[in-house]
Amino acid sequence: MTEVPTRAVLLIGGGGHARVVRDTLEVMGRTCLGIVASEPSSAMGLSYIGDDAAAFRRFPQGGEAALGLGGVPGQGVPGTALRRRVYETYIARGFRFPPLIGRGVILAPDVVLADGAQVIAGAILQPGVQLGRNALANTGARIDHDTVIADHAMIGPGAILCGGVAIGVGAYVGAGAVVLQGVRIGPDAVVAAGAVATRDVEAGGFVGRP
Amino acid sequence: MTEVPTRAVLLIGGGGHARVVRDTLEVMGRTCLGIVASEPSSAMGLSYIGDDAAAFRRFPQGGEAALGLGGVPGQGVPGTALRRRVYETYIARGFRFPPLIGRGVILAPDVVLADGAQVIAGAILQPGVQLGRNALANTGARIDHDTVIADHAMIGPGAILCGGVAIGVGAYVGAGAVVLQGVRIGPDAVVAAGAVATRDVEAGGFVGRP
Amino acid sequence: MTEVPTRAVLLIGGGGHARVVRDTLEVMGRTCLGIVASEPSSAMGLSYIGDDAAAFRRFPQGGEAALGLGGVPGQGVPGTALRRRVYETYIARGFRFPPLIGRGVILAPDVVLADGAQVIAGAILQPGVQLGRNALANTGARIDHDTVIADHAMIGPGAILCGGVAIGVGAYVGAGAVVLQGVRIGPDAVVAAGAVATRDVEAGGFVGRP
Repeated sequence: MTEVPTRAVLLIGGGGHARVVRDTLEVMGRTCLGIVASEPSSAMGLSYIGDDAAAFRRFPQGGEAALGLGGVPGQGVPGTALRRRVYETYIARGFRFPPLIGRGVILAPDVVLADGAQVIAGAILQPGVQLGRNALANTGARIDHDTVIADHAMIGPGAILCGGVAIGVGAYVGAGAVVLQGVRIGPDAVVAAGAVATRDVEAGGFVGRP
Repeated sequence: MTEVPTRAVLLIGGGGHARVVRDTLEVMGRTCLGIVASEPSSAMGLSYIGDDAAAFRRFPQGGEAALGLGGVPGQGVPGTALRRRVYETYIARGFRFPPLIGRGVILAPDVVLADGAQVIAGAILQPGVQLGRNALANTGARIDHDTVIADHAMIGPGAILCGGVAIGVGAYVGAGAVVLQGVRIGPDAVVAAGAVATRDVEAGGFVGRP
Repeated sequence: MTEVPTRAVLLIGGGGHARVVRDTLEVMGRTCLGIVASEPSSAMGLSYIGDDAAAFRRFPQGGEAALGLGGVPGQGVPGTALRRRVYETYIARGFRFPPLIGRGVILAPDVVLADGAQVIAGAILQPGVQLGRNALANTGARIDHDTVIADHAMIGPGAILCGGVAIGVGAYVGAGAVVLQGVRIGPDAVVAAGAVATRDVEAGGFVGRP
């Protein structure tokens, strides 16, 4: 028997970021269909659907989903790869990811949010900002005018991107990091938590603290 | 003659943080009964009650109070000891400290605020956050999911606590400091302003800038 | 023929900060008369007035204006000089600069904003804060109680000024920088992005990252 997709959203992940995403969905008036995770999870009082394979069996036509996986990089290793892979797997299975806008977010009217973009509580996106597919602006991030964030990139809690910054596909900017005006961060590059990127960073590059 | 406690709140302290706390009380629709301070203060147009001893004479049955003392640590010395001592002295005298929630604060619905917890203007507390008794999340602090802050701890202005952080009793996290995901800061430890805590810190420990 | 000044505001500058200022004006219900810039600009769908000389010819009696120039300092060189010069030139020509308050700004009731002061989206100004003429508190800056910011000073995105700080005329505090409680930053001094000012800085001084 094939279930008909509903307006409720499938929540992928059962950990901390999933709780944040669930709260975001509630703020948006959306309900959660259940949790997909490799381990059973009941932390949020939601039904446990099973793992990815179980989700694909149960919803063969896809439906709406939200990615509740966070990502923590090691030294020079972006934590964005897992989120990207999971996102693309679900897209290939017919799922769609609505953009998410959390509590107290400040959005200029011309901000562009692609599918699956997540703007978490208290983040600020100024005029001309673009957030790519499955890109994440985490809690209280401040993203200034004309900054463009490519697909799958993650901007950590409280990070500061000055005006006209470019963040490459899958790049990671850690908590509280600063990227100065006009600086370009290459694909899959990492700016460590608390670091300051004062010049362009090549693809796969790493900016640490002094 | 014994005064009957009122719904107005006794403000302990007459300096800068007291002004912030008074503003917070006004946002919450509470009025101030007067100021308790070691030196007469009229900066806020409130009546001066006297010092602690005078307050205890005048309100022998206690009442509601709010702690308006900030705290600035030295090298490795937490600034939380004074706030803790004053709080506990008033508790022993029958005073109660309602939790305070300031202007533009973002609180997830399941956040737990203990007695005397202070969430100052613009702070963000994500799902699962707990703020202990007399703990302080100062101006614009960003506290991510599942972080637990123990009694009497102080989180400075604009500090960033990632998800799943644990802050010990009386610990101090300075302005703009970052504590990475899952890191545990021991009791009475200090993370200096602008520092990044990347691993656990022992009780009484100190994390400086590089 | 002399145009009569209108309630619409002349926007000086056609780049990124001008877009932010225009968004701020819209939030405040003000409309833009057009853009003054050295190069023709149509990025915002506003009419191009011409350069400064053209503006002075067209509005010989002055009118209301808003300064849309940002400022990026080099090593030790404040970026505030240009903004100051342009502001003073327009003042001398009879223009007035209303204070600007952006989206989601948190202002204590007793905050004082002088003419031309700009409080950009998400900034927090606590009780007792004063922002001088043509001073700028950029995106998400957090300015704690009793801090006084003198004329023409710039506080960068996400910068943190603790309580009782004094910022001198034309000083520049970079993105994400922290100025500790009670510290005085002299006129035309620069605190680099991400730096922490722990003690007073002399006029024209520079605080870098460690």
